[in-house]
Order: sequence, then structure tokens, then C-alpha cells
Amino acid sequence: MVVEIERKFLVAGDTWREAPAVYFAQGYLSTEKSRTVRVRVAGDEAFLTIKGETQGFSRQEFEYPIPLADGKALLAMCEQPLIEKYRRKIPAANFVWEVDEFLGANAGLVVAEIELPSEDADFPRPDWVGEEVTSDARYYNASLVRHPWSQW
Amino acid sequence: MVVEIERKFLVAGDTWREAPAVYFAQGYLSTEKSRTVRVRVAGDEAFLTIKGETQGFSRQEFEYPIPLADGKALLAMCEQPLIEKYRRKIPAANFVWEVDEFLGANAGLVVAEIELPSEDADFPRPDWVGEEVTSDARYYNASLVRHPWSQW
Repeated sequence: MVVEIERKFLVAGDTWREAPAVYFAQGYLSTEKSRTVRVRVAGDEAFLTIKGETQGFSRQEFEYPIPLADGKALLAMCEQPLIEKYRRKIPAANFVWEVDEFLGANAGLVVAEIELPSEDADFPRPDWVGEEVTSDARYYNASLVRHPWSQW
Repeated sequence: MVVEIERKFLVAGDTWREAPAVYFAQGYLSTEKSRTVRVRVAGDEAFLTIKGETQGFSRQEFEYPIPLADGKALLAMCEQPLIEKYRRKIPAANFVWEVDEFLGANAGLVVAEIELPSEDADFPRPDWVGEEVTSDARYYNASLVRHPWSQW
């Protein structure tokens, strides 16, 4: 188990597109806020991830690698539709921004996340980083399954 | 992933008590029938198990060992109360019966399960094996969380 401290922002401009993209498909076996259970297939890897309730910018996270074939079979058991997105990793100072470009019913939505060592850590903000949405539960991936961005 | 073929019976008599018992604590991150997610601490081992919908006597099962500390932390995130029981393994011919003696709100309930190689496999029925309840969803452990046996 780790405690994940993460902040999330909308994205402006286009320069983030230069980084290489990996296709992610992910779904949820539970979308309950206090115990989300996520199945993710990322390229040729698969993971099972359990997250607790967010408190401030932090939440408990338990992540386990699983066989790719299991990941694909579990995706089919998840609440539909799946979340599909391209992820790009963009280094900045000692941090790595993760930029998610959503597809399907969430196409048009692009968000950037940064993982921090503490809640009050300072971090670089490249010029493509826009408004902060960390506390807006609509942007949770688990929430985007039932309430996709195109329907807001 | 395996397909688990299992039949479940009520238990009569007392001779099954002679087998050694292991204490199990388990809880659910999802109790949805089509995608239950179970956390189990069994003695000093812990497992994360995902099961699909039951069809006949069969269901898909994905089981992953996890660190004991993770198992204990995840139990605290599960829907409460937890399921607590003693499990005994009782060999019979080429099979092993698993006898679960429930505790807490399900105290008094004892069920025996046998895993089979095919839906139509023949199997031994020791004299303490009673009425079959395989198809009665009330006996699902995930269901016993919200509807404990003492309240039926």
C-alpha cells in the first residue's frame, strides 16, 4: 500500500502532444468512492488497483500487476463503457506530468496529473497546464464511466 | 483465470468438527453478482479474488496472493461487517470438502462446498452432507454481509 498524493489540471495548447503516447483501456469492478477497484491494460501490461477515499489531495492505493490475459478478461467484466485514453509522460524538473487524452464518450477531455511527495510540495507548471480540478469529482476516471465529459 | 465449478450443501451432525480449523476473515470491495471482489485473510496468507456471475454451477475466478499487511488494510476498506468463519478441509475419495462454520451475525450456519472437474461429475457424499443450496443466492458469502443468516 502507498499513499498517493496527486493533483489534477486541465490542459491547454498542443505542445504536450510531442511526447510518445501509450494506449490505456481501463474499467471498474467497483466505482464506489470509498473503494474503487480498477482494471487497467496499459500497452502490454495489466494492473489491478484499489483506491480508498480521497482526503485532501491524498488517497490509499494498492496496485498489483496481473497477467495481460487476466486484464483483458477482467475488462470485459467491468462496468461498461470502458475508459480509453492515450497517456503521455512529460518530465519537468524532478517531476513527471502524466497527460491523459481521453477517447470515446470522453473525447476532447485532456487532463494532466502530477504525483507529489507531500500535500504542500512546490512543483513546476509548464505553460500548457491550466485550471486545477483536483477536487472536482466529475473528473475522477471512475466517475467518467457513468457521466462522460461529452454529456456535461 | 480459472472456471470454478462448485456445489454447496448444508451440513448435519458433528463429525466434521474433528478436522483442524483455520480462521478466515473476508470482506467485499464489490458485492455485485456479476463482479464480486473479495479480500480474504486466511491464517497468515491474504488473497484478492474476483468472481464473475454464476452460470449453472460454474463461474470465472481470478485469484491473486497479496501481502498480509495489504490484506488487513483492505479488509478495513470493505463493506462492513466482515464475514468471519472457521474453515475445515475434509478429504473424501479424490475430493476435498471445505466446511465453513460461520461466526458473528451468521453464527449457526455451516455449509460444505466441493469443487468439481465438470458440472456432471459424481462425488462422494459423507453422511454429514445435507440439503443442496448451490442455487440459493442467499448463501453466497457476498450476500451474507447484508443479509446475515440470523435475520432470515
